Amino acid sequence: MRNFSDRLIDEIDKYDNPSCVGLDPRIDEIPTFLAEAAMKECDVKPGESSNAAWAASARAIEMFNERLIDSTHDLVPGYKLQWAFYEPFKEHGVRAFEKTANYAKSKGKIVIGDGKRNDIADTAEAYADAHLGVVGLVTGVYVSGLNEDALTVTPYLGSDGLRPFIDVCKRFGKGIFVLTKTSNNSGVEIQDLMLAENHGGRRVFEQVALKAEILGRDLLGKRGYSSVGIVVGATGNTPEELRQQAKRIRELNPFAITLVPAYGQQGGTAKDTVPAFTGEGYGAIVNNSRGIMFAYQREPYKDKYRPEEFEKASRDAALAMKDDMRNTLKASGFRRWV
Amino acid sequence: MRNFSDRLIDEIDKYDNPSCVGLDPRIDEIPTFLAEAAMKECDVKPGESSNAAWAASARAIEMFNERLIDSTHDLVPGYKLQWAFYEPFKEHGVRAFEKTANYAKSKGKIVIGDGKRNDIADTAEAYADAHLGVVGLVTGVYVSGLNEDALTVTPYLGSDGLRPFIDVCKRFGKGIFVLTKTSNNSGVEIQDLMLAENHGGRRVFEQVALKAEILGRDLLGKRGYSSVGIVVGATGNTPEELRQQAKRIRELNPFAITLVPAYGQQGGTAKDTVPAFTGEGYGAIVNNSRGIMFAYQREPYKDKYRPEEFEKASRDAALAMKDDMRNTLKASGFRRWV
Repeated sequence: MRNFSDRLIDEIDKYDNPSCVGLDPRIDEIPTFLAEAAMKECDVKPGESSNAAWAASARAIEMFNERLIDSTHDLVPGYKLQWAFYEPFKEHGVRAFEKTANYAKSKGKIVIGDGKRNDIADTAEAYADAHLGVVGLVTGVYVSGLNEDALTVTPYLGSDGLRPFIDVCKRFGKGIFVLTKTSNNSGVEIQDLMLAENHGGRRVFEQVALKAEILGRDLLGKRGYSSVGIVVGATGNTPEELRQQAKRIRELNPFAITLVPAYGQQGGTAKDTVPAFTGEGYGAIVNNSRGIMFAYQREPYKDKYRPEEFEKASRDAALAMKDDMRNTLKASGFRRWV
Repeated sequence: MRNFSDRLIDEIDKYDNPSCVGLDPRIDEIPTFLAEAAMKECDVKPGESSNAAWAASARAIEMFNERLIDSTHDLVPGYKLQWAFYEPFKEHGVRAFEKTANYAKSKGKIVIGDGKRNDIADTAEAYADAHLGVVGLVTGVYVSGLNEDALTVTPYLGSDGLRPFIDVCKRFGKGIFVLTKTSNNSGVEIQDLMLAENHGGRRVFEQVALKAEILGRDLLGKRGYSSVGIVVGATGNTPEELRQQAKRIRELNPFAITLVPAYGQQGGTAKDTVPAFTGEGYGAIVNNSRGIMFAYQREPYKDKYRPEEFEKASRDAALAMKDDMRNTLKASGFRRWV
């Protein structure tokens, strides 16, 4: 089975683009005409709360996602699907997630599930099987589960909470991204705490980056990176702080692929993501959700396209991000992008 | 809306029992006769991997859970459902979770979802809405989501990853349990790290307990506890270490209800859970999953009951746990249990 990090880097090369599109379908931002089409298809009226109204909600998400994938799949290596925006729709939401993931995969795309799952022992194994491996049915057969290519996970339970994921990744050529440093204001409350000298003398997130490095040695690919990636936010600090932080993380973990979640949100720019790249200019994949999905509501696309043309705005935004990333990495002197 | 911690303590009083039953339906441990009944009902044969085979898997889980609830609901305040054992069955698994939760609620039981969810800002809010609040449908209405009474959450993202959950708890009388100290071997890798003097000078899990205390002030109930609970394992250390650890946690957070997950597993005994109780003898709820669900496969019930009578073994095990907990708390001098 091919190593996930190799697959991801090959796709980044193929599309000449180190960014991915986040599919976080906030239901109240889906264009009205699509919401209406989904309601019509499911035969429900505004104000209904029947089972069909739940199904229509999921259907609107599927339709929205598929059109976004249609309009961007020739530009990007893959998509990141945020579980939190599917889970509210219960069984219907999980079906929408699966349909979207399968649709993206049918176009040859990499699918990252952003679930931040975590537990220990055979409970972690059940999550790993569900998202990345095979599931045993009551009929005695084992079949692919949700079949994402990679899943984000949370490190608080230590390495025996991550090992079951890594075992599944090894068998099926999948990857994980370990939540390491987030850019929300209170991320610092735990992640930035400094440890005592006899407990490593570094910050908690640095300790996590180091753990991921040790575990990642089991999943090294031919292109020099590991399928045990890390999630590192790129906002909320001064550029110099971000640079120092990324430098420290890279010292401790030189071969994790860094998933950078916040381009175009919370003020994140291409420049802020530069410290996550390394060597020739690989080692990171930068995600943009709202800025691409809901570009039709935002400047500079708002006046250019009607809501019915939302996917044109998304395509423009994805192209603009690609150019921005490439130009910025080139200006930073990364050989791959010159 | 009534405070969750008040509701939970009232139920503990009503059933004279500080324990709950974990519903972690490992599919390969479900009695064969039930697996066969589910396959028959869904018209599938062994070896099938059709959509109906997935549905039959979920159906087996539902049937198993409902019989367990039938045989134990008059003994316990509630049930803890581990999401990791439902999620593998995709949309069918979520439906089985919801049906089980609704069935338990129809018997007046408290339902704790063990999902260890976590994210930030409006993403955390989407999880909170999904599990504990109301969900906005495409039809413009807001309706109850999965409607668990409480959800386990992970603290790595800091207080702005927890706030959205707390806001929803306040509105709907729900609770959270913040993962604080786990009993797996490598839980210590992050949780037990000692912080530098100028960063609190305590261990990471103590810092988490303190954060939960601060956030928990917003959800204090009339009975002296907060609906911001904590999860603290009760195995993996010497009894003296457990006592010291629980004492430190109680100093930092005197009013969190402690969810103790590991009774009867990993060597956990009633005695190990004692330090989680406080005052008169409230402040903790002790969970037992495998030891009750799969009692029919285990000593001393294995030879007493046939697999077809699995729920009798489960009832015996739930009763034995109730007695064990009560006797142990009584012997420890807690006034509530004398």
